[in-house]
Amino acid sequence: RYGYFGTDKLEAIKLLLCKVSGGLTDGQVYLTTGGEEMVSINTRDTTGIVMLQREGVEVMLLCSSETPVSSSLAERLSKRTGCELLQDVGPGQVDELMRRKGLAWKEVAYLGNDEVDVDCLNLAGLSGVPRDAPVVALNATKYVCHSPAGHGAVREFGEHILLLIKKAKSKMEQDHIRRDLF
Amino acid sequence: RYGYFGTDKLEAIKLLLCKVSGGLTDGQVYLTTGGEEMVSINTRDTTGIVMLQREGVEVMLLCSSETPVSSSLAERLSKRTGCELLQDVGPGQVDELMRRKGLAWKEVAYLGNDEVDVDCLNLAGLSGVPRDAPVVALNATKYVCHSPAGHGAVREFGEHILLLIKKAKSKMEQDHIRRDLF
Amino acid sequence: RYGYFGTDKLEAIKLLLCKVSGGLTDGQVYLTTGGEEMVSINTRDTTGIVMLQREGVEVMLLCSSETPVSSSLAERLSKRTGCELLQDVGPGQVDELMRRKGLAWKEVAYLGNDEVDVDCLNLAGLSGVPRDAPVVALNATKYVCHSPAGHGAVREFGEHILLLIKKAKSKMEQDHIRRDLF
Amino acid sequence: RYGYFGTDKLEAIKLLLCKVSGGLTDGQVYLTTGGEEMVSINTRDTTGIVMLQREGVEVMLLCSSETPVSSSLAERLSKRTGCELLQDVGPGQVDELMRRKGLAWKEVAYLGNDEVDVDCLNLAGLSGVPRDAPVVALNATKYVCHSPAGHGAVREFGEHILLLIKKAKSKMEQDHIRRDLF
Repeated sequence: RYGYFGTDKLEAIKLLLCKVSGGLTDGQVYLTTGGEEMVSINTRDTTGIVMLQREGVEVMLLCSSETPVSSSLAERLSKRTGCELLQDVGPGQVDELMRRKGLAWKEVAYLGNDEVDVDCLNLAGLSGVPRDAPVVALNATKYVCHSPAGHGAVREFGEHILLLIKKAKSKMEQDHIRRDLF
Repeated sequence: RYGYFGTDKLEAIKLLLCKVSGGLTDGQVYLTTGGEEMVSINTRDTTGIVMLQREGVEVMLLCSSETPVSSSLAERLSKRTGCELLQDVGPGQVDELMRRKGLAWKEVAYLGNDEVDVDCLNLAGLSGVPRDAPVVALNATKYVCHSPAGHGAVREFGEHILLLIKKAKSKMEQDHIRRDLF
Repeated sequence: RYGYFGTDKLEAIKLLLCKVSGGLTDGQVYLTTGGEEMVSINTRDTTGIVMLQREGVEVMLLCSSETPVSSSLAERLSKRTGCELLQDVGPGQVDELMRRKGLAWKEVAYLGNDEVDVDCLNLAGLSGVPRDAPVVALNATKYVCHSPAGHGAVREFGEHILLLIKKAKSKMEQDHIRRDLF
Repeated sequence: RYGYFGTDKLEAIKLLLCKVSGGLTDGQVYLTTGGEEMVSINTRDTTGIVMLQREGVEVMLLCSSETPVSSSLAERLSKRTGCELLQDVGPGQVDELMRRKGLAWKEVAYLGNDEVDVDCLNLAGLSGVPRDAPVVALNATKYVCHSPAGHGAVREFGEHILLLIKKAKSKMEQDHIRRDLF
């Protein structure tokens, strides 16, 4: 079962909160005998973030201490994608963030992938989960990606958000026309 | 054929013995021209280990000299997962381990992936094998994971263990209620 | 839907323009805590480039600032494949390139994978896209590879080009024979 | 179409010639900004080599200048698998090798994956190709592996060789019994 299963009225999304480990990356952490760590991202997904930013949608990256990505790596991901990085964000912190930005949950999209994301997946206006996420996340989301984490899921969910923005805009235009006519 | 094929009475598992190469990792070893070695693990699986530890199930990692992971890498895996590491463990060493811990085989779960694991797979109360393991291991196990080694198999087998613990507990509660009533 | 969907007359291709990120590589960029970056290519694809070069087809690699591959990596790819590297090439630059080489668009094959490639995919005599490219590229191409980017797509598209060259040559030979006979 | 398509009398194999790039490895070469190169092998495959060596089958690794693996990496693969390494081996060199070892082609198994391997694939007593090899190799082999290169193909082909050795031995035993009886 892939695609969109939400029913509620489509709202223009203003902010995407995107999990790093198991969202922007595939959750794979490489450990070397020399003591280094390595993660990988896909340029399709970074292009997807650029497409969202071009349309005025802010993208923020979320790290969780349960799936620690070393701080130097997290910083490099943040620099490379031009996205601010937040650590261990639950519904409470998102509430505070939205209050500061003057946003409501329905204007927030959330890409998560595990148990720790379930509350935000339920609250967000639009929620997405990569195809290969654990069952607990698959059951809490409105949109299940065809693509796996770290290999196109962010790009696919970004295109889905842009599609909804386009639909919401054309609906608003139709409403205006109807109001002008009658 | 995936899922659980065991028939015997479900016991609460207290210890998971988990193979490193071809269980926690996908068995892939990266060799660099600079002389380094690298392996990869997935944060879904390390989260699975955390979930087991939270429910009081101890997790120990097994390395085998047949599929050598360099000692510095093995140590890093042990530190990162908070699990003790055992080298070249066969049924004899497991017997000794269980005697020290006061456990019976039926309270031990074993995730293995090759010929060297077959004896322990047969003896363990609950045995699991990643989807992409060689035939010899697939034929010796009670549970075949949908996920491949190093990419969710440990998480899936961990969730299966937690499910059995839950079932065993609720069965015990029902038995108590029945005994109190009659 | 894989394979060739073009209908126009087959021309002998003289030049293949091949996207690096998401064509020769799978688009995956590895980031290490030590500050390094890494990409991977497959020897099947580099053998495919050698096969084209042997048949007189020039191969040039295209990098795009939207999916930046660090210059040192780009140089190593260029050296390892014996192909010249071009940065941020759109239809205008390709026109200029072809004017210098005395080529027409119908003698140019283009392997692309994203929105930024759509114009060249439409103009090229033969266009190809890896199986796992975003929809926008899949809809703009004549040939959809069975293989994914970085894992055989360049080899498969190269073999398809060589097949068309063979067909174009044998057709020319038949035309000569017919002209000599009648 | 996977599995064995040969019809000729099964002979006990004494030597396996195994291609490195696209056989023992998946052909993927990782390039780092620091100038290093990296390849990966799977412990399932190295265990397969150990199983063959235990049954007296010698295993030799083949490198080809068309798919160059840097010498330091080739040496490490040779050391880690305990196999001798040969560079750019065609039928002529194999003839010479067999003359020195007193072997016939029917006692030689060959795991190859590309055009450069076709002659040896045709001559070898038993030939194998990974599932994801180019068509030219798939058409020249007796055994097509279910597993891809670098991820179980060597293990699977090794188990196939051991199966044929077992069958050849039991056939010989039956022939002896028949001869003693009649």
